[in-house]
Amino acid sequence: MRMYDIIKKKRDGGELSTEEINFFVRGVTDGSIPDYQISALLMAIYFRDMTVRETCDLTFAVRDSGDRLDFSAIGGIRVDKHSTGGVGDKTSLVVAPIVASYGVKVAKMSGRGLGHTGGTVDKLEAIDGFRTTLSEEEFIAQVKKIGMAIVGQSRQFAPADKKLYALRDVTATVDSMPLIAASIMGKKLAADDDCIVLDVKTGSGSFMKSVEKSKELARLMVDIGKNAGKKMVALITNMDRPLGYAIGNSLEVIEAVETLQGRGPADFTEVCMTLAGYMLSLAGKGTPEECKQLAKRAVADGSALKKLAETVAAQGGNAERILHPETFKKAKYARAVLSRKGGYIQSVDTEAYGLASLALGAGRNTAEDTIDYSAGIILKKKTGDPVLKGEEIATLYTDDEKTFAAAEEKLLAATTIGSERPQSEPLVYDIVE
Amino acid sequence: MRMYDIIKKKRDGGELSTEEINFFVRGVTDGSIPDYQISALLMAIYFRDMTVRETCDLTFAVRDSGDRLDFSAIGGIRVDKHSTGGVGDKTSLVVAPIVASYGVKVAKMSGRGLGHTGGTVDKLEAIDGFRTTLSEEEFIAQVKKIGMAIVGQSRQFAPADKKLYALRDVTATVDSMPLIAASIMGKKLAADDDCIVLDVKTGSGSFMKSVEKSKELARLMVDIGKNAGKKMVALITNMDRPLGYAIGNSLEVIEAVETLQGRGPADFTEVCMTLAGYMLSLAGKGTPEECKQLAKRAVADGSALKKLAETVAAQGGNAERILHPETFKKAKYARAVLSRKGGYIQSVDTEAYGLASLALGAGRNTAEDTIDYSAGIILKKKTGDPVLKGEEIATLYTDDEKTFAAAEEKLLAATTIGSERPQSEPLVYDIVE
Repeated sequence: MRMYDIIKKKRDGGELSTEEINFFVRGVTDGSIPDYQISALLMAIYFRDMTVRETCDLTFAVRDSGDRLDFSAIGGIRVDKHSTGGVGDKTSLVVAPIVASYGVKVAKMSGRGLGHTGGTVDKLEAIDGFRTTLSEEEFIAQVKKIGMAIVGQSRQFAPADKKLYALRDVTATVDSMPLIAASIMGKKLAADDDCIVLDVKTGSGSFMKSVEKSKELARLMVDIGKNAGKKMVALITNMDRPLGYAIGNSLEVIEAVETLQGRGPADFTEVCMTLAGYMLSLAGKGTPEECKQLAKRAVADGSALKKLAETVAAQGGNAERILHPETFKKAKYARAVLSRKGGYIQSVDTEAYGLASLALGAGRNTAEDTIDYSAGIILKKKTGDPVLKGEEIATLYTDDEKTFAAAEEKLLAATTIGSERPQSEPLVYDIVE
Repeated sequence: MRMYDIIKKKRDGGELSTEEINFFVRGVTDGSIPDYQISALLMAIYFRDMTVRETCDLTFAVRDSGDRLDFSAIGGIRVDKHSTGGVGDKTSLVVAPIVASYGVKVAKMSGRGLGHTGGTVDKLEAIDGFRTTLSEEEFIAQVKKIGMAIVGQSRQFAPADKKLYALRDVTATVDSMPLIAASIMGKKLAADDDCIVLDVKTGSGSFMKSVEKSKELARLMVDIGKNAGKKMVALITNMDRPLGYAIGNSLEVIEAVETLQGRGPADFTEVCMTLAGYMLSLAGKGTPEECKQLAKRAVADGSALKKLAETVAAQGGNAERILHPETFKKAKYARAVLSRKGGYIQSVDTEAYGLASLALGAGRNTAEDTIDYSAGIILKKKTGDPVLKGEEIATLYTDDEKTFAAAEEKLLAATTIGSERPQSEPLVYDIVE
């Protein structure tokens, strides 16, 4: 088999065989195929697309390119939720303990933030003492005992994806459905869950800007997961505005705790209850609607909050931060951002909001950057809200006063104010089952 | 400027600016753009094509990536002929002396053969003593004095093309009109001619298999040349069969001499007279038809043959080989290939004929291979000829007897014999001016 022939076949619109795709991914992983041939094939795939069969094969080959986990020792039904990434998305901190409080297992491996999106692992590290690295034995034992654990990805999952993504990133081939789906699902399927709920974010804060494209991606990922024997559902959710009011690590943990206390933002609460409902439903606890009620009950009776505190304590974190979030270290400096005109907030560039938070120190430009855990933004006004000239639209937090000016400009530039009240958009656009 | 943005623009169907194309070719030449980005752009160009303006810019950037020649010291009008490569194509050896015999300057730099096509430089090296490497001063002085010289490419012409071609070759992006045109014309325009006649070969022995595609390429190359200020014409000629009867280096020199003696094969003679006519016509010697008559006269009165002998002598070669071609060293072994059935030759795979000659030792598989100058094939029958079972269709020549079996099988397999006499095809399909 020759890589040249594989490139030519795809270039001419052919369907690659399982053997050809395996040959390709093996060569990517062991370095035997040169980068220039890989990128030529990626561009040909960009133009010619892949069938569902090819995309499944690519996903499975990516999954099998590195370690795979075996969670069978945990027992029970294991459910995971995967978000395609957004701004202010602290959903995992809420849905995992809700689901775990009903005895469903959540063995969660999360990513770190990069660029405008935050990462669950970074948020948890805002809690003093919290260990995001557990040994496999510790991890499995904890999920078995208390029902959940959240750690960073310590092992070499899907190394082929790492290589492919690095090349896609510099050759303008990121934006291809089969390549996106294989990248997300290849990593996800290396874990050992029974059910997966996908949260496909759509809009200015996500990498999928249109609902149609998001549905297409969701459909493809659900098909791949089912082909791998998983129970699957995908929600297409709104990321045209940040989720909730808090952006930044400890700020988001606090908002998650407030949500588990039943006093979280309406939009964020609704998305969490819907997602948790589908997670419980896939695990066999009832219809999605029945399970949404179960989710609300776990908040109302305090069992979900207790589960989060229990998890934090089990992973060495200071559970006081969960039970009394007002004890979190505050940022040294705060600054109110005042609107320069009056009207309604028509729309916001959510990605730019994420970048403003990044500028304050809450995120990373490169994987080596360190994080200011108390930095970030608390929004006072969101899309659709009326605002007066001179009224506060957000408060910025940072330990580095010099970052205020740039963050404030970024935030104001990203906020469109007009005289008409904008039409409200749904929080959940669609469900793909 | 970033290569990423250039790739993305072309991927999305945009037209690259002159600055973007120059940035790209500069980065290819100095190695600052990594291969994986180059190949991604090449594949995007394959799918999105280029406008004539972009293709001109690419060609000029490739031309300017290395040395350029200055032939102004030669004086007079300088005409070149460039063939896209075929089997048995010894045309340069005939047309150059015809044109030079009328005082038009032919300062010719030719390539070497690789794979199934031969190279003019290799053919000339079949003449003992002939030097295909002259200093620039020697080269210019010779053309100035006797009107012509033929040398190999000694300098670093169009190094960007060398790099691009190497990548195209392994990423299935050779087959793209703008990339082909920029490669051929980028090298051609590095020389300093006033007029260029392109011989675009079409059919089983060339890399362009269809007349339509050949016309498209010819049109594009003529436009590029005109944009560079050259007088241009392109002929689309038939390469569905070898040109003439001889394939192999000294065998082809002998056939060229016979043609200059007025007793060459009809097809080869006709193509040579037509090409020489257009070369003389571009140089201002009259209409193409008038100039074709001039070409025939230079053969009839022996002036063209004399010019070739003079050139060979000037470059250190033994002119006896031209004046008495029967003195060429003969191959040690000859073998007749007999037809295994009777009928008419319907068609031949001309590329396979070239590969059979290569197998006998007449060509190179890699640039390092050495050549057996007396090896090759003399055809006895060509497409359209009737043949009896057991009749000789070709004679093979080599110094290495072991090569006969493979070459014979190749030749027989490449020859289709049937009962119907095939329709004859034109020698010159079209003229693009």
